[in-house]
Amino acid sequence: MEYCGKPIASRSKYSTTNLRRCFKPKKHSGKCDEFPYLSHLSEVEPKVAGKIVRDSIMTTGASWKSEDAGPNRIMRWVMLKSDRELLSLGINMSALKPQVVAKLREKAADYSSCMAVAQKLTFLVYSMRNAPTPPTEIATYIENTVGPIVTNSTCCLVCLEPLDFNLFSAARRGKAELETSHSNPRLHTSSNVGFAHRACNIAQGNKNLDEFYDWIEAILRRARPRLCR
Amino acid sequence: MEYCGKPIASRSKYSTTNLRRCFKPKKHSGKCDEFPYLSHLSEVEPKVAGKIVRDSIMTTGASWKSEDAGPNRIMRWVMLKSDRELLSLGINMSALKPQVVAKLREKAADYSSCMAVAQKLTFLVYSMRNAPTPPTEIATYIENTVGPIVTNSTCCLVCLEPLDFNLFSAARRGKAELETSHSNPRLHTSSNVGFAHRACNIAQGNKNLDEFYDWIEAILRRARPRLCR
Repeated sequence: MEYCGKPIASRSKYSTTNLRRCFKPKKHSGKCDEFPYLSHLSEVEPKVAGKIVRDSIMTTGASWKSEDAGPNRIMRWVMLKSDRELLSLGINMSALKPQVVAKLREKAADYSSCMAVAQKLTFLVYSMRNAPTPPTEIATYIENTVGPIVTNSTCCLVCLEPLDFNLFSAARRGKAELETSHSNPRLHTSSNVGFAHRACNIAQGNKNLDEFYDWIEAILRRARPRLCR
Repeated sequence: MEYCGKPIASRSKYSTTNLRRCFKPKKHSGKCDEFPYLSHLSEVEPKVAGKIVRDSIMTTGASWKSEDAGPNRIMRWVMLKSDRELLSLGINMSALKPQVVAKLREKAADYSSCMAVAQKLTFLVYSMRNAPTPPTEIATYIENTVGPIVTNSTCCLVCLEPLDFNLFSAARRGKAELETSHSNPRLHTSSNVGFAHRACNIAQGNKNLDEFYDWIEAILRRARPRLCR
């Protein structure tokens, strides 16, 4: 699909050059929109739509509440800038703990990747069991950009069990049951991203999926030697 | 072994009745001591000795820094008291979020269990690869209370790989690589406690070990169907 591509105003103080673009089809009618495929979810499930945007474009920072923790959430593409550029934007990376810098830097991703991730996550949401049905216009947009929506086809990236849309509103101890997840946690691209149960995502940790399966296989070989060949 | 059992002064404002006792052998010479078997580790590896005491007797509270998070670390046996008793000690459980209350309450354990856990953890530490060698007096104490120390015999409770004492001082991103771990996370008893790699402990989460192995087995059956019978 060819996109409109006109610049979208960004209010962020961290954007020196404005990368953000309209993702409506070229020669569209009406206002420009960076996330046109989210208009329906924004209306019927605003929290899920918000999560898709947030997880696609922002770094995350767990329990970063202390002084030296640095910015908790920042656009992923800002983290592609050099320490010197960031300093001029008011972010002093050298003042942060090395583990915080590492965590921030590994969430870095370019703008195009983030936009492709948002489309992919929207596709996965509409393909979940019990997901709302998208209006034809949005279904067409997603099928043209990502692929055909097949209801009940979205599975947890880690445990491969089908995911139910209702898990978005389920929470245990204040923590949502569904998280955005990465096959390789250091790669924020469309093909590498999905949803996972919170427990699955936590268990995977910073391993990529192959490493994770190797790891649990080795555990099972020791814990239940008769099970595996 | 028969213990001295004389009361040890507690400085905690939460102790209405003082449970704490001397764990030296009956009719010992010298001062009373609640953790006599830690005297050597306290000298040569004070951080490890401190961790054993802390993990044995205190609740833990992860990232509880907010106002409504409640007491972060408190003696486990204090969490056996009723809400009303706790209120009179200045802890208003009804003001805490339900998930915080649940987390605190499931760490509750009676004083004897905590003391047995401390002995067990000390035994496990001395049985690790590259652990310091205990003086004869302490080795005898541990063998009489827990069991025979066999070097290189302490394994991760979860993945069953041998644990190296030097992992105590290893840390990634500011987090220690070894954690105190429970076969059943809701049971703080000597037979249920051990050490685990941080990643293993996190992966186990709030499942007991059997549930965890069942869970990863089911994951592997889906992810690598040819592997398991």
